[in-house]
Amino acid sequence: MAPARRKSADDRRSPCPAGCALDLVGDRWTLLLVRDLIRGKTRFGEFLSSPESIPTNILADRLARLEKAGLVTGELYQKNPPRRCYRLTAKGRDLGPVLGALVDWGKRHIPGTFTLDER
Amino acid sequence: MAPARRKSADDRRSPCPAGCALDLVGDRWTLLLVRDLIRGKTRFGEFLSSPESIPTNILADRLARLEKAGLVTGELYQKNPPRRCYRLTAKGRDLGPVLGALVDWGKRHIPGTFTLDER
Repeated sequence: MAPARRKSADDRRSPCPAGCALDLVGDRWTLLLVRDLIRGKTRFGEFLSSPESIPTNILADRLARLEKAGLVTGELYQKNPPRRCYRLTAKGRDLGPVLGALVDWGKRHIPGTFTLDER
Repeated sequence: MAPARRKSADDRRSPCPAGCALDLVGDRWTLLLVRDLIRGKTRFGEFLSSPESIPTNILADRLARLEKAGLVTGELYQKNPPRRCYRLTAKGRDLGPVLGALVDWGKRHIPGTFTLDER
């Protein structure tokens, strides 16, 4: 078998904090979920209702990954059928400045963008 | 044919500045390229030498996308064979705070990470 591309024992691409952060949140959807969680959304259907229309399979995958990485906690709020709600941990909430910097950049450089508060 | 998922005329998922920013830089590699460009790397081989070992096809794709989006400018520095070097535009440099926030978060929450300056 060919040797694995990843070099570190723990599957990190490098010790770079930005690289390791991107291994967790470097995709088109995860930080939008963090945005929704910061705004108080907690349930699957609420995340689905955001204007970007995240596909259900991607939503389920990202919630599971965020929970595994300790950025959100899931809690059963209904037993039958089982339904979970999600909340950011302190580690997840600390992504706020990353999201804020993205929002600032988008507002400055992408014409026609606006946040919900400005609508 | 099924209708396209994307709703806006300009292919945006929503008017959210964070979502639109993630359409450009929401992946595992692009902001690491921005990191390298901020640190002064300009050439294909220099980007390839970063510790994350970006695959050449992804590097070529990301540089082309960044150039198309106006975040970098490419310039021919050798004619035969043609070789281009890349520099951030003001729009690209303005991603510095996004990268900085990611670095801060990684250093705080992912044990064992460190920046090149701290090595």
